[in-house]
Amino acid sequence: MCRWMAYSGSPIPVSELLLTPKHSLIDQSLHSTMGATTTNGDGFGLGWYGIGDTPGVFHSMEPAWNDRNLADLSRHLVSPLVFAHVRASTGGAIQQTNCHPFRYRNWLWMHNGLIREFATVKRDLAFAVDPSLYPLIEGSTDSELFFYLALTMGLQDDPLTAVERTVGLIEDTGHAHGVPDPIQMTVATTDGTSIWAFRYSSEGVSRSLFHSTNIAMLRQMYPENSLLHEVSEETRLIVSEPLGFGSVTGNPLASTQARLPAS
Amino acid sequence: MCRWMAYSGSPIPVSELLLTPKHSLIDQSLHSTMGATTTNGDGFGLGWYGIGDTPGVFHSMEPAWNDRNLADLSRHLVSPLVFAHVRASTGGAIQQTNCHPFRYRNWLWMHNGLIREFATVKRDLAFAVDPSLYPLIEGSTDSELFFYLALTMGLQDDPLTAVERTVGLIEDTGHAHGVPDPIQMTVATTDGTSIWAFRYSSEGVSRSLFHSTNIAMLRQMYPENSLLHEVSEETRLIVSEPLGFGSVTGNPLASTQARLPAS
Amino acid sequence: MCRWMAYSGSPIPVSELLLTPKHSLIDQSLHSTMGATTTNGDGFGLGWYGIGDTPGVFHSMEPAWNDRNLADLSRHLVSPLVFAHVRASTGGAIQQTNCHPFRYRNWLWMHNGLIREFATVKRDLAFAVDPSLYPLIEGSTDSELFFYLALTMGLQDDPLTAVERTVGLIEDTGHAHGVPDPIQMTVATTDGTSIWAFRYSSEGVSRSLFHSTNIAMLRQMYPENSLLHEVSEETRLIVSEPLGFGSVTGNPLASTQARLPAS
Amino acid sequence: MCRWMAYSGSPIPVSELLLTPKHSLIDQSLHSTMGATTTNGDGFGLGWYGIGDTPGVFHSMEPAWNDRNLADLSRHLVSPLVFAHVRASTGGAIQQTNCHPFRYRNWLWMHNGLIREFATVKRDLAFAVDPSLYPLIEGSTDSELFFYLALTMGLQDDPLTAVERTVGLIEDTGHAHGVPDPIQMTVATTDGTSIWAFRYSSEGVSRSLFHSTNIAMLRQMYPENSLLHEVSEETRLIVSEPLGFGSVTGNPLASTQARLPAS
Repeated sequence: MCRWMAYSGSPIPVSELLLTPKHSLIDQSLHSTMGATTTNGDGFGLGWYGIGDTPGVFHSMEPAWNDRNLADLSRHLVSPLVFAHVRASTGGAIQQTNCHPFRYRNWLWMHNGLIREFATVKRDLAFAVDPSLYPLIEGSTDSELFFYLALTMGLQDDPLTAVERTVGLIEDTGHAHGVPDPIQMTVATTDGTSIWAFRYSSEGVSRSLFHSTNIAMLRQMYPENSLLHEVSEETRLIVSEPLGFGSVTGNPLASTQARLPAS
Repeated sequence: MCRWMAYSGSPIPVSELLLTPKHSLIDQSLHSTMGATTTNGDGFGLGWYGIGDTPGVFHSMEPAWNDRNLADLSRHLVSPLVFAHVRASTGGAIQQTNCHPFRYRNWLWMHNGLIREFATVKRDLAFAVDPSLYPLIEGSTDSELFFYLALTMGLQDDPLTAVERTVGLIEDTGHAHGVPDPIQMTVATTDGTSIWAFRYSSEGVSRSLFHSTNIAMLRQMYPENSLLHEVSEETRLIVSEPLGFGSVTGNPLASTQARLPAS
Repeated sequence: MCRWMAYSGSPIPVSELLLTPKHSLIDQSLHSTMGATTTNGDGFGLGWYGIGDTPGVFHSMEPAWNDRNLADLSRHLVSPLVFAHVRASTGGAIQQTNCHPFRYRNWLWMHNGLIREFATVKRDLAFAVDPSLYPLIEGSTDSELFFYLALTMGLQDDPLTAVERTVGLIEDTGHAHGVPDPIQMTVATTDGTSIWAFRYSSEGVSRSLFHSTNIAMLRQMYPENSLLHEVSEETRLIVSEPLGFGSVTGNPLASTQARLPAS
Repeated sequence: MCRWMAYSGSPIPVSELLLTPKHSLIDQSLHSTMGATTTNGDGFGLGWYGIGDTPGVFHSMEPAWNDRNLADLSRHLVSPLVFAHVRASTGGAIQQTNCHPFRYRNWLWMHNGLIREFATVKRDLAFAVDPSLYPLIEGSTDSELFFYLALTMGLQDDPLTAVERTVGLIEDTGHAHGVPDPIQMTVATTDGTSIWAFRYSSEGVSRSLFHSTNIAMLRQMYPENSLLHEVSEETRLIVSEPLGFGSVTGNPLASTQARLPAS
């Protein structure tokens, strides 16, 4: 329903991630080949770390492919850790507060997938959010509520356990309401230092997700790609679909959590 | 914080209400003289009854004064019952789902004022909304939650009692959290046949509200105003501020409910 | 590059044209099957005749498929003559002044196609516009300039000749600058009484265009379609792609002008 | 009609200019005290120099006071040369292509004021733009056309002479059409190294403009302002209205050109 990418490594202009690759995330907003929908034109979001303690966030209701501000900003922002997301709404309103990545303090969160029959389970899930966090929910999406549940479950202390417990709560709540296969997800979250990525679905058929494991191998495969040769050994990329400047690894993530060291 | 107007009577082009008067609601979006803020530029909303069972709603994030779609639509829509609202946000996001009037089936609702320390009481109030209505809340405003509470309290059966009970709940909840003067409000609601308007504040100093009681008197006072001479005897207007084509009645509403017969 | 439809006949809610058909124009904004591009998400426009001398126009920068105002308005507007257009930009800015249909007094104009190498010929064409019309050009598209050239050439007096002369001017100007195949077009224009539709391309391979010639035949072919049975004998529909509730006629327009009687 | 500010000096977060000052440009968008209009809510623009040869530009149709992207970006962008502008339209469409600052290669341009009776003189002025520059005009404002005329007159080689000649052309063209007092302006332009600011009006009563001449004096006057103590000696600020963290100099610019050395 959406497409996203997460980058961690040598500081680079965001445009190298968003604009330059042949099958960039912006191209995927118009021509996704592996997503549940071809068009991801219901808004866009960018999160990046730079100056200050909290990441910057840019949210737009417009399709990414023609957003001039996005194109201009991405050429002028340099960052070592970038989240970007193109949205295909499953019914929720098109508004900036429904755009990913969501931010809480130094954390970012983005999600591809859905909580099934969300209208049925929304109230129960909303009241499971910590009362001090509840008023911070601004939009109407399952993805943002998922984030605040994970924060409630201890995301800031132990992301793996928190997401695992949150998924368990969502599945239990769904099952209590008779919802089959309550969740479908790929998720990325970061505290500005590490990135955690998750791929899971109640029915066992999860959305695509790819991650780079070995920059040296990529350089060998794509000797003409200058970006790959300039970034550090620790650079990592996690994407819903390969960007086409080198198909990342071609290995879809298993339905488990991947913890990436970040620069 | 906002300005609104409600019209009921002979079907007229909406532009006669929004554009033609000297101190129209659109003018008030830029130059409010009696509101808590001079500028009401944080979105706009129009609700009107015409064909079909439910009213039409047009919501815009743009300031009303320069919204060409609004100007054009208002010249082409004819309606016997119109709600219009210009917003001055007290912090909530600028998005269409935060624009008044809010709609549920054949009902419309709009509000000027605020629920004080909303972040403190929001969760308790949201929990009081009927579970079947809860997932319909799309925005993040106090005003929309107020509407769904009133629906929960029986707005569709007995508006006066429902609003009274809702205000009581909001005050009780506020007091339980130590919030002084929990609510400040003028509200208009309609089922498409009647309009109910309310003016109240916990501290006893309510926002301005005016209503016309006697079209004959207005005609005598403003003989040059052709609109006033064409509409029926039952035509009524309720406004945050007089529109300047005849100062409505000049009598602010008491802090009580007014029920208007509608055509 | 775009898709459009023009309706003339019995007054109907605009939603019957935009929302109800299986392959409606809104569906075509996301899944065009016969257009130069699959996605037509770079804005939307609606023009309709109702009260007053000039048509109403609603322009939106957002993709049509998720525009709630558009969905709501279309359910509440009843009109005997409707133009609607979804845009796929060929580079021009996404802004309301670049959305079709364009309006001048009682006239509307919409265009699918392009003036080739527009940057090269724009200045020469702009200065061929009547000086009294020139300052009314608000956007940056080839399509709007094409309209003002046609007005300059006498569109209001003799549409067929004016469009023919304008196409000639565009081709001459293009050839003078060495532009091969200067124009590709389907165009619809109306004065509120008649609709004129044109299909032409310099290279002789024009964009798709369909029109209904015989409502009786359509009724026979699609006995289950209630809309077709309620409208008058004179009702006509011209579309870039069949709407799928009855494939209109299946006969693409010849590269000639079609003049339709309007109710 | 608008308000703007130009900053040149030590690299600082843009938020120090836009958000921190008491009477910041964002505050002026809502409460201008010295402008022709109190509200400057018809769009916003930011231009800044950083990486790359051309400046970044962020244009928004929304009022600056509630634009969350603007607030977020300004906290994450650090720049030694910043242009910012809040718009109050004098009739032109609210669209990004009408937002200042305008950009051509490494140059930025912004304007407060107007070319009087623009519809009357627009065509003649547009005709005077160099044919190679003409197709780059994207919006419909007098200010953008003014910029392209100045580029035509040699802005990149000799800004003072080019602006002087352009103002002369605008006045001559206005007078030829019987327009009294053809131009009212404050203008700032930059090539990324120097800033040139102009204040002029045909009638001799120009819009307010202030510039800082001596950072040492400002530090003495406002010992508590930490920003003023951190920036270099060469830092300069030019503003439509003082920002209120130190009233800049209090000396309005004479109706002449001021050339500022930039860091």
